[in-house]
Amino acid sequence: MDKKKIDANAFVYPMPMVLVGTHYQDRPNFMPVGWINRVNFNPPLLGAGINTRHTTAEAIMDTEVFSVNIPDVTMVKVTDYCGIVKGKNVDKSDLFDIFYGALKSAPMIKQCKMTMECKLYQKVEFPTNTLFVGEIINAYADESILTDDTPDIKKLKPFTLTMPDNRYWTVGNELGEAWNIGNEMKE
Amino acid sequence: MDKKKIDANAFVYPMPMVLVGTHYQDRPNFMPVGWINRVNFNPPLLGAGINTRHTTAEAIMDTEVFSVNIPDVTMVKVTDYCGIVKGKNVDKSDLFDIFYGALKSAPMIKQCKMTMECKLYQKVEFPTNTLFVGEIINAYADESILTDDTPDIKKLKPFTLTMPDNRYWTVGNELGEAWNIGNEMKE
Repeated sequence: MDKKKIDANAFVYPMPMVLVGTHYQDRPNFMPVGWINRVNFNPPLLGAGINTRHTTAEAIMDTEVFSVNIPDVTMVKVTDYCGIVKGKNVDKSDLFDIFYGALKSAPMIKQCKMTMECKLYQKVEFPTNTLFVGEIINAYADESILTDDTPDIKKLKPFTLTMPDNRYWTVGNELGEAWNIGNEMKE
Repeated sequence: MDKKKIDANAFVYPMPMVLVGTHYQDRPNFMPVGWINRVNFNPPLLGAGINTRHTTAEAIMDTEVFSVNIPDVTMVKVTDYCGIVKGKNVDKSDLFDIFYGALKSAPMIKQCKMTMECKLYQKVEFPTNTLFVGEIINAYADESILTDDTPDIKKLKPFTLTMPDNRYWTVGNELGEAWNIGNEMKE
């Protein structure tokens, strides 16, 4: 076999980068999270795998709500900064303009052109991380990133993360339509 | 506020596209999955949110193992095709060259330059989907995609998915080093 066994932790596919917003001791706090994805279609649930020692984990357990904010490529430095300094030690609430929706302890970031406010639906505890499963109560977008009322990634310009090489990446070119371009392989 | 409330299901950030491999009634079967990410650091656990009615969900519950295979941009049509036809009706085992590692019912795809074999660690049932949490037992890579023994996304060339617009995307350019480029914001 021409395959080489590598570190089982060498997890490379591009992960979405978002900023998770919480209230830590009544102060808005933000943490970049790459281990996040949808886990259920209806109701719309997403799961964020967060190291249980993080301030954000403590805050979600306390308030049972959080926000998910999608930064764009112009926000890569401030997003990274939020992952370098600890919310317990540094007040990050001045880094962004903040707004709230229906959930009073889920601060959202105006500079992020797409945001979601989530209610904690379930906590799944693993050895080092907790998967915080949130129900998306409301999603918000700037008009400027919508095409036919749907968020358009070419306008949103988010970025992704690879680990363990720890690099950020832009989104590239469109390759085709899902659940469609494979049709030509049907006999 | 200049934000517009949009459909709470309008989940746009780019999701990784992988092919999940299983044995369905002793036959290798593959399904594209975008709702996948890491959920725990140590041990290395990933979670895949799969509609419980899918053949793949049934197969994982039966065998308690699965594989995760990262297709590259040249495989977008065959990956999409695997999501269009049902494993219960169509034998997809001839679409790829298959190899096995330690887990005998976790078929991996030779054409995918990075693959992982996973043992079912936990099942988390949600209303429409089940999150299949797998422990990565072994990861494999082609030498051609490694840089300093680490998978290099510029060589791997995976692709991503956005929903609900259902489009596939290449990975773009490097934006910087994570947990580093934010350092210049420190006072």
